[in-house]
Amino acid sequence: MPRRMKQQADVAVTDGRRLRGDKSRAAILARAVNVASTEGLGGLTMGTLASDVGISKGNISILFGDKETLQLATLDAATEIFVTKVVTPALRLASPLERLRYLTDGWFDYVDSRTFPGGCLLYGTANEFRARPGRIRDRANHHRTAWIRLLTATVRDGQEAGQIRDDVDPDQLVFELTAFQSAANTAALLGDQPAFVRARRTSRECIAAAAGRPPARRKNPE
Amino acid sequence: MPRRMKQQADVAVTDGRRLRGDKSRAAILARAVNVASTEGLGGLTMGTLASDVGISKGNISILFGDKETLQLATLDAATEIFVTKVVTPALRLASPLERLRYLTDGWFDYVDSRTFPGGCLLYGTANEFRARPGRIRDRANHHRTAWIRLLTATVRDGQEAGQIRDDVDPDQLVFELTAFQSAANTAALLGDQPAFVRARRTSRECIAAAAGRPPARRKNPE
Repeated sequence: MPRRMKQQADVAVTDGRRLRGDKSRAAILARAVNVASTEGLGGLTMGTLASDVGISKGNISILFGDKETLQLATLDAATEIFVTKVVTPALRLASPLERLRYLTDGWFDYVDSRTFPGGCLLYGTANEFRARPGRIRDRANHHRTAWIRLLTATVRDGQEAGQIRDDVDPDQLVFELTAFQSAANTAALLGDQPAFVRARRTSRECIAAAAGRPPARRKNPE
Repeated sequence: MPRRMKQQADVAVTDGRRLRGDKSRAAILARAVNVASTEGLGGLTMGTLASDVGISKGNISILFGDKETLQLATLDAATEIFVTKVVTPALRLASPLERLRYLTDGWFDYVDSRTFPGGCLLYGTANEFRARPGRIRDRANHHRTAWIRLLTATVRDGQEAGQIRDDVDPDQLVFELTAFQSAANTAALLGDQPAFVRARRTSRECIAAAAGRPPARRKNPE
Protein backbone atom coordinates (compact mmCIF):
# COMPACT_ATOMS: atom_id res chain seq x y z
CA MET A 1 0.00 0.00 0.00
CA PRO A 2 1.44 3.45 -0.94
CA ARG A 3 2.39 5.45 2.11
CA ARG A 4 -0.28 8.11 1.61
CA MET A 5 -3.07 5.56 1.27
CA LYS A 6 -1.74 3.71 4.31
CA GLN A 7 -1.90 6.97 6.30
CA GLN A 8 -5.45 7.62 5.12
CA ALA A 9 -6.42 4.08 6.07
CA ASP A 10 -4.84 4.56 9.51
CA VAL A 11 -6.77 7.78 9.98
CA ALA A 12 -9.98 6.01 8.96
CA VAL A 13 -9.33 3.21 11.45
CA THR A 14 -8.54 5.72 14.20
CA ASP A 15 -11.64 7.75 13.34
CA GLY A 16 -13.71 4.58 13.38
CA ARG A 17 -12.33 3.65 16.76
CA ARG A 18 -12.87 7.15 18.10
CA LEU A 19 -16.42 7.13 16.79
CA ARG A 20 -17.11 3.77 18.42
CA GLY A 21 -15.38 5.06 21.58
CA ASP A 22 -17.54 8.21 21.59
CA LYS A 23 -20.67 6.12 21.07
CA SER A 24 -19.74 3.74 23.88
CA ARG A 25 -18.86 6.64 26.13
CA ALA A 26 -22.21 8.30 25.45
CA ALA A 27 -24.08 5.03 26.05
CA ILE A 28 -22.27 4.45 29.34
CA LEU A 29 -22.88 8.00 30.57
CA ALA A 30 -26.55 7.89 29.54
CA ARG A 31 -26.94 4.85 31.76
CA ALA A 32 -24.65 6.18 34.51
CA VAL A 33 -26.63 9.42 35.08
CA ASN A 34 -29.80 7.38 35.57
CA VAL A 35 -28.19 4.93 37.99
CA ALA A 36 -26.41 7.70 39.93
CA SER A 37 -29.59 9.75 40.29
CA THR A 38 -31.15 6.97 42.38
CA GLU A 39 -28.15 5.10 43.83
CA GLY A 40 -25.80 8.07 44.18
CA LEU A 41 -22.43 8.45 42.45
CA GLY A 42 -21.16 6.02 45.10
CA GLY A 43 -23.57 3.41 43.70
CA LEU A 44 -21.89 3.35 40.26
CA THR A 45 -19.86 0.25 39.49
CA MET A 46 -18.01 -0.35 36.23
CA GLY A 47 -19.08 -4.00 36.24
CA THR A 48 -22.80 -3.30 36.49
CA LEU A 49 -22.61 -0.48 33.94
CA ALA A 50 -20.70 -2.75 31.55
CA SER A 51 -23.36 -5.46 31.70
CA ASP A 52 -26.21 -2.89 31.52
CA VAL A 53 -24.78 -1.32 28.38
CA GLY A 54 -23.45 -4.55 26.91
CA ILE A 55 -19.78 -3.73 26.61
CA SER A 56 -16.80 -5.21 28.40
CA LYS A 57 -15.65 -3.92 31.77
CA GLY A 58 -12.18 -3.59 30.25
CA ASN A 59 -13.53 -1.14 27.65
CA ILE A 60 -15.10 1.01 30.37
CA SER A 61 -11.68 1.13 32.06
CA ILE A 62 -10.05 2.15 28.77
CA LEU A 63 -12.66 4.90 28.23
CA PHE A 64 -12.78 6.32 31.75
CA GLY A 65 -9.68 5.19 33.61
CA ASP A 66 -10.71 4.83 37.24
CA LYS A 67 -14.04 4.90 39.03
CA GLU A 68 -13.61 8.47 40.25
CA THR A 69 -13.08 9.72 36.70
CA LEU A 70 -16.26 7.90 35.67
CA GLN A 71 -18.13 9.52 38.60
CA LEU A 72 -16.88 12.99 37.62
CA ALA A 73 -17.83 12.40 33.97
CA THR A 74 -21.30 11.27 35.13
CA LEU A 75 -21.83 14.41 37.20
CA ASP A 76 -20.63 16.57 34.29
CA ALA A 77 -22.93 14.72 31.87
CA ALA A 78 -25.97 15.30 34.10
CA THR A 79 -25.04 18.97 34.43
CA GLU A 80 -24.69 19.25 30.65
CA ILE A 81 -28.20 17.82 30.19
CA PHE A 82 -29.57 20.35 32.70
CA VAL A 83 -27.77 23.16 30.86
CA THR A 84 -29.19 22.00 27.51
CA LYS A 85 -32.74 21.60 28.83
CA VAL A 86 -33.00 24.61 31.15
CA VAL A 87 -30.08 27.06 31.09
CA THR A 88 -29.58 27.45 27.33
CA PRO A 89 -33.26 28.15 26.54
CA ALA A 90 -33.40 30.58 29.49
CA LEU A 91 -30.37 32.51 28.23
CA ARG A 92 -32.16 33.13 24.93
CA LEU A 93 -34.72 35.30 26.72
CA ALA A 94 -33.95 39.00 26.61
CA SER A 95 -35.77 39.91 29.83
CA PRO A 96 -33.79 39.12 33.01
CA LEU A 97 -37.01 38.59 34.98
CA GLU A 98 -38.25 36.11 32.36
CA ARG A 99 -34.84 34.39 32.52
CA LEU A 100 -35.10 34.08 36.30
CA ARG A 101 -38.61 32.64 36.01
CA TYR A 102 -37.53 30.22 33.30
CA LEU A 103 -34.49 29.02 35.27
CA THR A 104 -36.55 28.48 38.41
CA ASP A 105 -39.64 26.93 36.84
CA GLY A 106 -37.37 25.00 34.47
CA TRP A 107 -35.62 23.36 37.41
CA PHE A 108 -38.97 22.16 38.79
CA ASP A 109 -40.06 20.90 35.35
CA TYR A 110 -36.74 19.10 34.99
CA VAL A 111 -37.27 17.23 38.27
CA ASP A 112 -41.03 16.78 37.85
CA SER A 113 -40.69 15.22 34.40
CA ARG A 114 -38.10 12.78 35.83
CA THR A 115 -35.39 13.67 33.34
CA PHE A 116 -33.52 11.36 35.70
CA PRO A 117 -35.48 8.91 37.87
CA GLY A 118 -33.84 10.23 41.05
CA GLY A 119 -34.35 13.94 40.34
CA CYS A 120 -31.53 16.47 40.23
CA LEU A 121 -28.15 14.76 40.41
CA LEU A 122 -26.37 17.97 41.43
CA TYR A 123 -28.36 18.48 44.64
CA GLY A 124 -28.06 14.74 45.26
CA THR A 125 -24.28 14.69 44.82
CA ALA A 126 -23.69 17.91 46.78
CA ASN A 127 -25.41 16.17 49.70
CA GLU A 128 -23.82 12.76 49.11
CA PHE A 129 -20.26 14.10 49.07
CA ARG A 130 -20.75 17.10 51.39
CA ALA A 131 -18.42 15.66 54.04
CA ARG A 132 -16.01 13.73 51.80
CA PRO A 133 -13.17 16.02 50.66
CA GLY A 134 -11.86 15.18 47.21
CA ARG A 135 -12.38 15.73 43.51
CA ILE A 136 -16.10 14.81 43.47
CA ARG A 137 -16.95 17.19 46.33
CA ASP A 138 -14.93 19.92 44.59
CA ARG A 139 -16.71 19.35 41.28
CA ALA A 140 -20.15 19.29 42.92
CA ASN A 141 -19.28 22.51 44.73
CA HIS A 142 -18.07 24.02 41.45
CA HIS A 143 -21.39 23.25 39.68
CA ARG A 144 -23.40 24.33 42.74
CA THR A 145 -21.56 27.65 42.87
CA ALA A 146 -22.04 28.17 39.13
CA TRP A 147 -25.81 27.66 39.54
CA ILE A 148 -25.97 30.08 42.47
CA ARG A 149 -23.90 32.67 40.55
CA LEU A 150 -26.06 32.36 37.44
CA LEU A 151 -29.23 32.96 39.46
CA THR A 152 -27.64 35.84 41.41
CA ALA A 153 -26.36 37.54 38.24
CA THR A 154 -29.83 37.18 36.72
CA VAL A 155 -31.41 38.88 39.76
CA ARG A 156 -28.84 41.72 39.48
CA ASP A 157 -29.58 42.06 35.75
CA GLY A 158 -33.26 42.28 36.66
CA GLN A 159 -32.50 45.10 39.10
CA GLU A 160 -30.47 46.98 36.51
CA ALA A 161 -33.34 46.57 34.06
CA GLY A 162 -35.76 47.93 36.68
CA GLN A 163 -37.69 44.65 36.76
CA ILE A 164 -36.68 43.65 40.28
CA ARG A 165 -36.91 45.97 43.25
CA ASP A 166 -33.69 47.64 44.38
CA ASP A 167 -34.28 46.70 48.02
CA VAL A 168 -34.12 42.98 47.18
CA ASP A 169 -30.90 41.31 48.37
CA PRO A 170 -29.93 39.04 45.44
CA ASP A 171 -27.99 36.65 47.72
CA GLN A 172 -30.98 36.29 50.03
CA LEU A 173 -33.44 35.68 47.21
CA VAL A 174 -31.18 33.08 45.59
CA PHE A 175 -30.49 31.42 48.94
CA GLU A 176 -34.25 30.98 49.40
CA LEU A 177 -34.84 29.75 45.84
CA THR A 178 -32.06 27.15 46.08
CA ALA A 179 -33.17 26.08 49.58
CA PHE A 180 -36.64 25.36 48.17
CA GLN A 181 -35.02 23.33 45.38
CA SER A 182 -32.93 21.37 47.87
CA ALA A 183 -36.05 20.49 49.88
CA ALA A 184 -38.10 19.80 46.75
CA ASN A 185 -35.56 17.39 45.29
CA THR A 186 -35.81 15.17 48.36
CA ALA A 187 -39.57 15.61 48.85
CA ALA A 188 -40.46 14.76 45.23
CA LEU A 189 -38.68 11.43 45.39
CA LEU A 190 -39.91 10.59 48.88
CA GLY A 191 -43.46 10.81 47.56
CA ASP A 192 -44.18 14.14 49.27
CA GLN A 193 -45.71 15.78 46.21
CA PRO A 194 -47.48 18.50 48.25
CA ALA A 195 -44.07 19.75 49.47
CA PHE A 196 -42.77 19.72 45.88
CA VAL A 197 -45.77 21.72 44.67
CA ARG A 198 -45.41 24.10 47.61
CA ALA A 199 -41.71 24.61 46.82
CA ARG A 200 -42.52 25.58 43.24
CA ARG A 201 -45.37 27.88 44.27
CA THR A 202 -43.28 29.53 46.99
CA SER A 203 -40.46 30.10 44.49
CA ARG A 204 -42.87 31.82 42.10
CA GLU A 205 -44.23 33.95 44.94
CA CYS A 206 -40.72 34.96 46.03
CA ILE A 207 -39.90 36.09 42.50
CA ALA A 208 -43.24 37.90 42.15
CA ALA A 209 -42.62 39.68 45.48
CA ALA A 210 -39.10 40.64 44.34
CA ALA A 211 -40.59 42.03 41.15
CA GLY A 212 -43.01 44.02 43.28
CA ARG A 213 -46.04 42.61 41.48
CA PRO A 214 -48.99 40.55 42.62
CA PRO A 215 -49.40 37.84 43.80
CA ALA A 216 -47.70 39.30 46.87
CA ARG A 217 -46.05 36.74 49.06
CA ARG A 218 -48.43 35.72 51.81
CA LYS A 219 -48.13 33.18 54.59
CA ASN A 220 -51.76 32.29 54.22
CA PRO A 221 -53.22 33.05 50.79
CA GLU A 222 -56.75 34.42 50.89
CA MET B 1 -25.10 -27.71 91.61
CA PRO B 2 -28.66 -27.48 93.08
CA ARG B 3 -31.21 -26.60 90.45
CA ARG B 4 -32.04 -23.18 91.89
CA MET B 5 -28.38 -22.13 92.12
CA LYS B 6 -27.84 -23.41 88.58
CA GLN B 7 -30.75 -21.27 87.39
CA GLN B 8 -29.36 -18.22 89.20
CA ALA B 9 -25.94 -18.84 87.70
CA ASP B 10 -27.52 -19.14 84.23
CA VAL B 11 -29.33 -15.85 84.74
CA ALA B 12 -26.06 -14.21 85.83
CA VAL B 13 -24.28 -15.54 82.75
CA THR B 14 -27.14 -14.38 80.53
CA ASP B 15 -27.17 -10.95 82.21
CA GLY B 16 -23.40 -10.69 81.81
CA ARG B 17 -23.67 -11.58 78.15
CA ARG B 18 -26.53 -9.16 77.64
CA LEU B 19 -24.55 -6.41 79.36
CA ARG B 20 -21.53 -7.07 77.17
CA GLY B 21 -23.86 -7.27 74.17
CA ASP B 22 -25.45 -3.92 75.07
CA LYS B 23 -22.01 -2.34 75.51
CA SER B 24 -20.77 -3.68 72.17
CA ARG B 25 -23.98 -2.58 70.47
CA ALA B 26 -23.60 0.93 71.88
CA ALA B 27 -19.92 1.09 70.83
CA ILE B 28 -20.75 -0.05 67.30
CA LEU B 29 -23.62 2.43 66.92
CA ALA B 30 -21.53 5.30 68.35
CA ARG B 31 -18.99 4.63 65.59
CA ALA B 32 -21.63 3.91 62.93
CA VAL B 33 -23.44 7.24 63.30
CA ASN B 34 -20.15 9.09 62.77
CA VAL B 35 -19.18 7.03 59.73
CA ALA B 36 -22.68 7.26 58.21
CA SER B 37 -22.84 11.03 58.68
CA THR B 38 -19.93 11.47 56.25
CA GLU B 39 -20.05 8.32 54.09
CA GLY B 40 -23.82 7.81 54.08
CA LEU B 41 -25.65 4.76 55.42
CA GLY B 42 -24.53 3.07 52.21
CA GLY B 43 -20.93 3.58 53.32
CA LEU B 44 -21.32 1.40 56.43
CA THR B 45 -19.63 -1.99 56.28
CA MET B 46 -19.67 -4.54 59.08
CA GLY B 47 -16.01 -5.38 58.45
CA THR B 48 -14.74 -1.80 58.80
CA LEU B 49 -16.94 -1.14 61.85
CA ALA B 50 -15.68 -4.35 63.47
CA SER B 51 -12.04 -3.37 63.06
CA ASP B 52 -12.77 0.27 64.12
CA VAL B 53 -14.46 -0.86 67.33
CA GLY B 54 -12.18 -3.85 67.94
CA ILE B 55 -14.73 -6.66 67.92
CA SER B 56 -15.20 -9.53 65.52
CA LYS B 57 -17.30 -9.18 62.38
CA GLY B 58 -19.16 -12.29 63.53
CA ASN B 59 -20.23 -10.51 66.71
CA ILE B 60 -21.61 -7.58 64.70
CA SER B 61 -23.65 -10.05 62.68
CA ILE B 62 -24.96 -11.66 65.89
CA LEU B 63 -25.90 -8.25 67.32
CA PHE B 64 -27.47 -6.71 64.20
CA GLY B 65 -28.30 -9.52 61.81
CA ASP B 66 -27.91 -8.05 58.34
CA LYS B 67 -26.49 -4.80 57.00
CA GLU B 68 -29.90 -3.20 56.51
CA THR B 69 -30.81 -3.79 60.16
CA LEU B 70 -27.51 -2.18 61.16
CA GLN B 71 -28.30 0.80 58.88
CA LEU B 72 -31.78 1.21 60.40
CA ALA B 73 -30.34 0.97 63.94
CA THR B 74 -27.76 3.62 62.99
CA LEU B 75 -30.41 6.02 61.69
CA ASP B 76 -32.51 5.41 64.83
CA ALA B 77 -29.47 5.97 67.08
CA ALA B 78 -28.68 9.31 65.40
CA THR B 79 -32.32 10.35 65.73
CA GLU B 80 -32.29 9.41 69.41
CA ILE B 81 -29.21 11.60 69.99
CA PHE B 82 -30.98 14.52 68.25
CA VAL B 83 -34.07 13.95 70.39
CA THR B 84 -31.98 13.91 73.57
CA LYS B 85 -29.98 17.02 72.64
CA VAL B 86 -32.68 19.16 71.05
CA VAL B 87 -36.25 17.84 71.27
CA THR B 88 -36.39 16.80 74.94
CA PRO B 89 -35.02 20.12 76.30
CA ALA B 90 -37.37 22.03 73.97
CA LEU B 91 -40.40 20.12 75.22
CA ARG B 92 -39.63 21.24 78.78
CA LEU B 93 -40.37 24.84 77.79
CA ALA B 94 -43.91 25.93 78.61
CA SER B 95 -44.13 28.60 75.89
CA PRO B 96 -44.84 27.20 72.38
CA LEU B 97 -43.01 30.12 70.76
CA GLU B 98 -39.93 29.41 72.91
CA ARG B 99 -40.23 25.72 72.00
CA LEU B 100 -40.29 26.59 68.29
CA ARG B 101 -37.25 28.82 68.69
CA TYR B 102 -35.41 26.16 70.68
CA LEU B 103 -36.17 23.41 68.15
CA THR B 104 -35.04 25.58 65.25
CA ASP B 105 -31.95 27.12 66.80
CA GLY B 106 -31.18 23.77 68.44
CA TRP B 107 -31.01 22.10 65.03
CA PHE B 108 -28.45 24.67 63.84
CA ASP B 109 -26.40 24.28 67.05
CA TYR B 110 -26.52 20.51 66.63
CA VAL B 111 -25.07 20.75 63.11
CA ASP B 112 -22.71 23.66 63.87
CA SER B 113 -21.14 21.88 66.85
CA ARG B 114 -20.57 18.81 64.64
CA THR B 115 -22.41 16.40 66.93
CA PHE B 116 -21.66 14.19 63.92
CA PRO B 117 -18.84 15.14 61.55
CA GLY B 118 -21.19 15.04 58.53
CA GLY B 119 -24.00 17.11 60.07
CA CYS B 120 -27.59 15.91 60.37
CA LEU B 121 -27.87 12.24 59.44
CA LEU B 122 -31.64 12.48 58.90
CA TYR B 123 -31.44 15.09 56.13
CA GLY B 124 -28.48 13.17 54.71
CA THR B 125 -30.32 9.84 54.67
CA ALA B 126 -33.60 11.28 53.37
CA ASN B 127 -31.59 12.53 50.37
CA GLU B 128 -29.42 9.41 50.04
CA PHE B 129 -32.37 7.02 49.92
CA ARG B 130 -34.95 9.36 48.35
CA ALA B 131 -35.23 7.24 45.21
CA ARG B 132 -34.57 3.81 46.69
CA PRO B 133 -37.81 2.23 47.93
CA GLY B 134 -37.35 0.00 50.95
CA ARG B 135 -37.11 -0.06 54.72
CA ILE B 136 -34.43 2.64 55.01
CA ARG B 137 -36.36 5.11 52.83
CA ASP B 138 -39.52 4.33 54.84
CA ARG B 139 -37.72 4.88 58.15
CA ALA B 140 -36.11 8.13 56.96
CA ASN B 141 -39.52 9.30 55.78
CA HIS B 142 -41.02 8.32 59.14
CA HIS B 143 -38.47 10.39 61.10
CA ARG B 144 -38.73 13.28 58.60
CA THR B 145 -42.52 13.33 58.93
CA ALA B 146 -42.26 13.21 62.74
CA TRP B 147 -39.95 16.26 62.69
CA ILE B 148 -42.29 18.18 60.36
CA ARG B 149 -45.32 17.25 62.52
CA LEU B 150 -43.59 18.29 65.73
CA LEU B 151 -42.73 21.71 64.27
CA THR B 152 -46.22 22.14 62.79
CA ALA B 153 -47.94 21.19 66.08
CA THR B 154 -45.67 23.68 67.89
CA VAL B 155 -46.69 26.47 65.50
CA ARG B 156 -50.38 25.59 66.06
CA ASP B 157 -49.84 25.60 69.84
CA GLY B 158 -48.27 29.04 69.45
CA GLN B 159 -51.34 30.25 67.57
CA GLU B 160 -53.68 28.88 70.25
CA ALA B 161 -51.55 30.62 72.88
CA GLY B 162 -51.81 33.90 70.93
CA GLN B 163 -48.02 33.99 70.36
CA ILE B 164 -48.11 33.37 66.62
CA ARG B 165 -50.34 35.30 64.24
CA ASP B 166 -53.54 33.59 63.14
CA ASP B 167 -52.88 34.41 59.47
CA VAL B 168 -49.71 32.32 59.48
CA ASP B 169 -50.06 29.02 57.58
CA PRO B 170 -48.26 26.49 59.83
CA ASP B 171 -47.50 24.15 56.89
CA GLN B 172 -45.95 27.01 54.92
CA LEU B 173 -43.82 28.23 57.83
CA VAL B 174 -42.57 24.70 58.58
CA PHE B 175 -41.91 24.03 54.89
CA GLU B 176 -39.67 27.10 54.81
CA LEU B 177 -37.89 26.27 58.09
CA THR B 178 -37.13 22.70 56.98
CA ALA B 179 -36.06 23.87 53.49
CA PHE B 180 -33.50 26.18 55.13
CA GLN B 181 -32.27 23.24 57.21
CA SER B 182 -31.98 21.03 54.12
CA ALA B 183 -29.87 23.69 52.38
CA ALA B 184 -27.84 24.45 55.52
CA ASN B 185 -26.92 20.81 56.11
CA THR B 186 -25.26 20.61 52.70
CA ALA B 187 -23.78 24.13 52.79
CA ALA B 188 -22.16 23.72 56.22
CA LEU B 189 -20.25 20.63 55.16
CA LEU B 190 -19.34 22.01 51.73
CA GLY B 191 -17.56 24.87 53.50
CA ASP B 192 -20.23 27.44 52.61
CA GLN B 193 -20.48 28.89 56.13
CA PRO B 194 -22.15 32.14 54.91
CA ALA B 195 -25.09 30.09 53.58
CA PHE B 196 -25.31 28.21 56.89
CA VAL B 197 -25.33 31.48 58.85
CA ARG B 198 -27.91 32.93 56.45
CA ALA B 199 -30.13 29.86 56.88
CA ARG B 200 -30.10 30.28 60.67
CA ARG B 201 -30.75 34.03 60.47
CA THR B 202 -33.55 33.60 57.94
CA SER B 203 -35.18 30.95 60.15
CA ARG B 204 -35.11 33.34 63.12
CA GLU B 205 -36.56 36.11 60.97
CA CYS B 206 -39.35 33.84 59.70
CA ILE B 207 -40.31 32.94 63.26
CA ALA B 208 -40.10 36.58 64.38
CA ALA B 209 -42.32 37.62 61.46
CA ALA B 210 -44.81 34.85 62.32
CA ALA B 211 -44.84 36.10 65.91
CA GLY B 212 -45.56 39.59 64.55
CA ARG B 213 -42.59 41.12 66.35
CA PRO B 214 -39.42 42.84 65.19
CA PRO B 215 -37.09 42.08 63.51
CA ALA B 216 -39.57 41.98 60.68
CA ARG B 217 -38.53 39.81 57.79
CA ARG B 218 -36.69 41.87 55.23
CA LYS B 219 -35.01 40.95 52.00
CA ASN B 220 -32.35 43.55 52.60
CA PRO B 221 -31.73 44.30 56.31
CA GLU B 222 -31.07 47.97 57.02
